[in-house]
Amino acid sequence: MINIAILGCGTVGGGVAELIEENFKEVKAAAGDDVRVKYILDIRDFKGTKYEKIVVNDINVIVNDPEIKIVCETMGGKEPACSYSKLALEHGISVCTSNKELVDFYGAELSEIARKHNCSYLFEASVGGGTPLLRTLKTLRHEKLDKVMGILNGTCNYILTKMRNEGMEFADALKLAQDKGYAERNPDADILGHDTARKIAILASLVSGKRVRYESVNCEGITKIDKLDFKYADKLNATIKLLGFYKEGHEVLVAPFLIKNNNALYNVNEAFNAILFHGNMLSDAMIYGSGAGRYPTASAVVSDVVELAKNFNKFIYNGLSLELNNNINQALKFKYFVRADKFIDGVQQLESFNDECAFITEPLSEAEFNNKFAGLEIKNKIRILEAI
Amino acid sequence: MINIAILGCGTVGGGVAELIEENFKEVKAAAGDDVRVKYILDIRDFKGTKYEKIVVNDINVIVNDPEIKIVCETMGGKEPACSYSKLALEHGISVCTSNKELVDFYGAELSEIARKHNCSYLFEASVGGGTPLLRTLKTLRHEKLDKVMGILNGTCNYILTKMRNEGMEFADALKLAQDKGYAERNPDADILGHDTARKIAILASLVSGKRVRYESVNCEGITKIDKLDFKYADKLNATIKLLGFYKEGHEVLVAPFLIKNNNALYNVNEAFNAILFHGNMLSDAMIYGSGAGRYPTASAVVSDVVELAKNFNKFIYNGLSLELNNNINQALKFKYFVRADKFIDGVQQLESFNDECAFITEPLSEAEFNNKFAGLEIKNKIRILEAI
Repeated sequence: MINIAILGCGTVGGGVAELIEENFKEVKAAAGDDVRVKYILDIRDFKGTKYEKIVVNDINVIVNDPEIKIVCETMGGKEPACSYSKLALEHGISVCTSNKELVDFYGAELSEIARKHNCSYLFEASVGGGTPLLRTLKTLRHEKLDKVMGILNGTCNYILTKMRNEGMEFADALKLAQDKGYAERNPDADILGHDTARKIAILASLVSGKRVRYESVNCEGITKIDKLDFKYADKLNATIKLLGFYKEGHEVLVAPFLIKNNNALYNVNEAFNAILFHGNMLSDAMIYGSGAGRYPTASAVVSDVVELAKNFNKFIYNGLSLELNNNINQALKFKYFVRADKFIDGVQQLESFNDECAFITEPLSEAEFNNKFAGLEIKNKIRILEAI
Repeated sequence: MINIAILGCGTVGGGVAELIEENFKEVKAAAGDDVRVKYILDIRDFKGTKYEKIVVNDINVIVNDPEIKIVCETMGGKEPACSYSKLALEHGISVCTSNKELVDFYGAELSEIARKHNCSYLFEASVGGGTPLLRTLKTLRHEKLDKVMGILNGTCNYILTKMRNEGMEFADALKLAQDKGYAERNPDADILGHDTARKIAILASLVSGKRVRYESVNCEGITKIDKLDFKYADKLNATIKLLGFYKEGHEVLVAPFLIKNNNALYNVNEAFNAILFHGNMLSDAMIYGSGAGRYPTASAVVSDVVELAKNFNKFIYNGLSLELNNNINQALKFKYFVRADKFIDGVQQLESFNDECAFITEPLSEAEFNNKFAGLEIKNKIRILEAI
């Protein structure tokens, strides 16, 4: 019997408990033994539910129970998730988490604590929700991975899909996403790109082997994208997606991109996520899956539980490092799609809607763009992703 | 130092040797120790090349060397690959292979031999080339997987992509594929669907946990697809792809499908492969990558080498079973796109080219189709994949 505890029984944590019950036989076959949720830590008391008898509100009950070998931290946020994870690891209890904020902020430190105490810190569910991404990247350590990019935020992808397929304005698509439960009442973390920035920071850290901080990501959200941008995109046989982008040696970027219809990312719609990566031998590969949602994310957490159950009393490699990545300075250059008040020489002019001038530039860094087009009134500019 | 032997130094085997040299540092980090190719078994002598000194032509030299812990079988075909693999496993030497024919034919038996001798039999490269597929499926044992389908043959996908994008006839696209080295001089195994059938048989076996034989796959190739089919597909905002298809409880099928442009498989072009699967908690996920090619396939073989290196002297679960799957009898029902000499009542008529009648049927099994349209002269019929 493998006894686990779930910290925070919200959407994801509750899903973990349900999955372990629903797929009891499969989880047992995978983990090699029965898996039981012995404790749920929550501020609620779950009176009258089946969780009533296993709810505790003191983390010490959990970390001092020698039967507990694994803790699922599905609380989110920095505290008390960080202190509780640290405490568990110091007691030799492995931790798996869906908490990208904590992984970005303190994941490397928690990994070092795990290493010292012969246990592990895993975080499959923190990037890409149910998308089986980090597990797959771990099987590619024999590759020289030099690029990773992807659609990492289901909320933004849902909004952009609605704008594209149903001709909605941004505000209406956002409202629909909120009504459907895809977006928070305060949607800033999603639509300003911060959530994607955290995820691409984690991916860039894993792929480069050195820590990339969220704060160092050059981040642009989707709030400026309007209906007209999609009309242009359509004429260019393209769509618009918010991407996280990392290429070895270059700035780490979050921004909306025009993506042509021959690209594997073009058809990743609704709340799905997809992540493309490139290895020197593998060439391109992509993983696609549900970027969010109770059960897909719970499935990712349980994949960690299984991995931990098969590797008790040792530290499992997780790709995090305390060493900072100082090689993320070179500016990325992209062609830009631009809507402005006039054309200038050398741009590829497009047929324009309304009174504006639409064109495509040569490949430019952001600084070069700002320099070159300083005299123009720019209504919008969107980077163009070349075929991968 | 981890000493390995490569059986058959052709496209894939040679790629494995090159990868281990080129990515020596990465392979070491992944495997936990230096990996060295100590022997290459081949009928050629590689005189004047760097392999000259390590070539042997007697399998006994390899299996009787106690330093050899891993053998990469990249010979292809049943014999002598089967005997050599068996011999290695009986000596406690783990085997990894790219040989789908052997995995389908005798993989479950070889796994049992491995289990008895505390070593392992892995076959990542046998399905999907470089696509990191089987590794990912293995991390989903806690899911109830009930469906897997995909584009599994790079040659067919290349031909269909050329027909679609460049309006080529089948024969011309096939010739181009041969000239480019994507198709064999005798292309039957690819274009008749047999290669895809072997791969979907392996996938169906892994997903169901019980053996599905190649012979039990209902298999239809792409030789009947012509230029005109793509003209109709285009009007339906669709394309045509050869899919392997497995759904729990149903016949295992290989056939060309019309795939709508909102499907994640729609943009999988050229020689790329992509495999979609569905789990009860995960929902849909897809893995995309290079379906063939020297280095991507070698990368898949080396991912097995790494896994084996981390698990010496034990049997690694590989999903194969000796028990036959007897639950693959229910007929699949699909809507069909049909080109015939006349319409019949109840079909959805399409605007037709030339003198023929094109229409879409209600969902039918193949037997129902043949029964219902017995009186018609059918020029072509293609199943339609509903959105997944």
